[in-house]
Amino acid sequence: MTPDEFRQNGHALIDWIAEYIEGIESLPVFDPSLQPGDVRAQLPPHPPTAVEPFSAVLSDLDEIVVPGLTNWQHPNFFAYFPANSSYSAILGELTAAGLGVQGMSWVTSPACTEVETLMLDWMQELLDLPARFRSDSPTGGGVIQGSASEATLAAMLAARWRTTGGAVNADGDTTRLVAYTTTQAHSSIEKGLRIAGIGHERMRLVDIDDTFAMRADDLERQIAADRAAGLVPFFVCASRGTTSSTAFDPAVEIGEICRRENVWLHVDGAMSGVAALVPEHRWVNDGLDLADSYCTNPHKWMGVNFDCDLFWTSDRASLLGALSILPEFLRSKALESGAAIDYRDWQIPLGRRFRALKLWFMLRCDGVEPTQAMIREHVRMTQQLAEWVTADARFRIDAPYPLNLLCISLVAGNAATDALIEAANSTGQVMFTRTVLTIDGEPRSTLRFSIGARLTAERHVLAGWQLLQSLAALGA
Amino acid sequence: MTPDEFRQNGHALIDWIAEYIEGIESLPVFDPSLQPGDVRAQLPPHPPTAVEPFSAVLSDLDEIVVPGLTNWQHPNFFAYFPANSSYSAILGELTAAGLGVQGMSWVTSPACTEVETLMLDWMQELLDLPARFRSDSPTGGGVIQGSASEATLAAMLAARWRTTGGAVNADGDTTRLVAYTTTQAHSSIEKGLRIAGIGHERMRLVDIDDTFAMRADDLERQIAADRAAGLVPFFVCASRGTTSSTAFDPAVEIGEICRRENVWLHVDGAMSGVAALVPEHRWVNDGLDLADSYCTNPHKWMGVNFDCDLFWTSDRASLLGALSILPEFLRSKALESGAAIDYRDWQIPLGRRFRALKLWFMLRCDGVEPTQAMIREHVRMTQQLAEWVTADARFRIDAPYPLNLLCISLVAGNAATDALIEAANSTGQVMFTRTVLTIDGEPRSTLRFSIGARLTAERHVLAGWQLLQSLAALGA
Repeated sequence: MTPDEFRQNGHALIDWIAEYIEGIESLPVFDPSLQPGDVRAQLPPHPPTAVEPFSAVLSDLDEIVVPGLTNWQHPNFFAYFPANSSYSAILGELTAAGLGVQGMSWVTSPACTEVETLMLDWMQELLDLPARFRSDSPTGGGVIQGSASEATLAAMLAARWRTTGGAVNADGDTTRLVAYTTTQAHSSIEKGLRIAGIGHERMRLVDIDDTFAMRADDLERQIAADRAAGLVPFFVCASRGTTSSTAFDPAVEIGEICRRENVWLHVDGAMSGVAALVPEHRWVNDGLDLADSYCTNPHKWMGVNFDCDLFWTSDRASLLGALSILPEFLRSKALESGAAIDYRDWQIPLGRRFRALKLWFMLRCDGVEPTQAMIREHVRMTQQLAEWVTADARFRIDAPYPLNLLCISLVAGNAATDALIEAANSTGQVMFTRTVLTIDGEPRSTLRFSIGARLTAERHVLAGWQLLQSLAALGA
Repeated sequence: MTPDEFRQNGHALIDWIAEYIEGIESLPVFDPSLQPGDVRAQLPPHPPTAVEPFSAVLSDLDEIVVPGLTNWQHPNFFAYFPANSSYSAILGELTAAGLGVQGMSWVTSPACTEVETLMLDWMQELLDLPARFRSDSPTGGGVIQGSASEATLAAMLAARWRTTGGAVNADGDTTRLVAYTTTQAHSSIEKGLRIAGIGHERMRLVDIDDTFAMRADDLERQIAADRAAGLVPFFVCASRGTTSSTAFDPAVEIGEICRRENVWLHVDGAMSGVAALVPEHRWVNDGLDLADSYCTNPHKWMGVNFDCDLFWTSDRASLLGALSILPEFLRSKALESGAAIDYRDWQIPLGRRFRALKLWFMLRCDGVEPTQAMIREHVRMTQQLAEWVTADARFRIDAPYPLNLLCISLVAGNAATDALIEAANSTGQVMFTRTVLTIDGEPRSTLRFSIGARLTAERHVLAGWQLLQSLAALGA
């Protein structure tokens, strides 16, 4: 592709993307008839032997790729969690691809590192996070990770290093380390612990209360029991907004225990943390003054397209102790002076692209007001939805709904709720996901009604709810 | 940003990128006077309180960001390794951002998974890799990882799982596991092992020969010694093209030992593996018939912009055993049927974007011929450069140069070579990196002349060489 063809094709693609997003409501959320292999079967089994025009690619996007997508930007996408994008952030991603620089260390592209550091500090201000996370604080700093999974793993590794006084780098012995979380924590906690050599036998599931939040008293009890057994508590993950039901672990009480016990506290605010952009939701930050690390994802509820997880720590020395490796070909004067940040030592991979651009573009071109308005409206609609659900005696609400997720089920029981989710999704016009919450000692199938897409308005929520009502009337 | 503003700004940005790449030769490779903090000092310390026009962002790109970059696409960029981009792949990345879908599992966007699987199979054909890596083989398959670091870590975790019969997921006990590589392996090997709980006390550095390649006899000896000591050899990383000097470990002999000893063999072809696109360089694949896993990076020498690491395994069951975690909210019918691939279980993070698009776009719009021609020309120029260096008695060649990297030094010694690198880089018109190779028992400072940028032509190599000659005449 020549530069001129790039210009022409690029303009066409920009227009195509605008049309995709503007017209997304006319598409189904997904095609429920699609079976594994259906997309591939429409594509050539072998690589092309002749060059094709860009128009052929665009045509296949329309005819094969888009019909094979689950459209996460769709206003009727109520599944999983939001993965919002925005026009400005899309242009930031395009710029990163166009520049094609590597940000693994300061010297490999100083602007890539410095814009990123600045964005973390800007976001510390906008979210009103503790100043101890700032890069210009004595011991803290922040970095963009690809995902909360990676942020959590990085936190575990820093904790592992600190608790063992660095010995783990040499002996790899993790066999006495114990971590604490709850059944409601994200799957990435178990996955990260497993990767870090903390098998599930040493992952404690602390009791939860009837809001699905960690019971601090049980955490304290379990830590004491493990110490008594000669084990070494090293890591607690408190969720501020669980994936399953938006439960909020009591991070202040947990943080006080962690301080006393000298255990690393990581707070996972992947989904809900950006709510702190809105002053009345700053309570989501409670406990961060006591946390050793924290993450939240602008690629979920803020419109900075994936991947953009913000990770802060108040103990960068432990993070660097855990992850720094310095071969000859990566040494530089800037590093040796101690003045520069080399982000490769803050993350699992070595390479990294210029991800800060999408945040920078969005904060400059859109500001935070549209996001604040969106978050407020999503929260308002969730409360509105809860009123509608409450008024329908066939349904019940299964968990607190402080933000943008409502967990509901049919009073008729689990089979009915499962059938309802299945029936709703089989229309392809909406998408919900199911979770299971233990209520009164019994597992309850729950429909997660997650209201988080940028384009979702009240009429979409209402239509989704009316669909559920009509399906419930039919069969459940 | 409205859809119409997106169209207008997007077109302007496409043009801006074309101008950046077309005009890159008129820029310095980097600004050697830049000090840590210089970029940030030009930007507002606090987030903006009013929305800015896109033109202001573009202007800051020109005036602050680009002058603060190390321009990896520059034809005089001879440092590190190439990180090529191409116009078609840039458009693929833009499409992924515009679609904004999540590919963590098949059901979250079937096309995202299926196009990726197809791309891995296409690349298996184009690189002439063993069929046992194909997704339609009984036990193999491939996936796009963000980087070779992540691919290597995934391989280690699969190996750890297989060797312990899965027990590591429960007990996290890695204290008897031993891994083998050489001093020349990439830093990500030590980093990955450390993360996986294999401290450096159980990372064996196998002897190297005078081509900086692993000595298979020493590997065999060390494995036997470790077994005799009651330890459990579990993982060997063979490099096919080291970062430092493009050394090639003898993967056939190593593979035979690994087979016999039931040790996982991961082959790291991150940099050099894509040379197999060119039939006469298919020797880089030697030994892959015996490997349990392999990775190579189109984001290095193929023009698919970062991040795009291709990772294959012939033992997907061990990979899934190591990385699969299945909470309720991620269950799906497609998964339970066994017909669908859920790539979240093939990688460290959960989330993933539609990275296959950039490979798909490039293979269709450009084909492999431009890459084949580029690789051939880079290799030819490296051999040409070697002739020039050989003719200058002040210089010596420090390592074999089968592909596109020439390691050279001044006969005058390490201080002179270090000063030469420093002087060359201080012009900002070229960029070289330094490595240290042990030659005749002594550490030798070496200038790595890496010829891998898409725009590099013979005149750039000649000018770079003449600069080195003139600087050597001046001071060294």
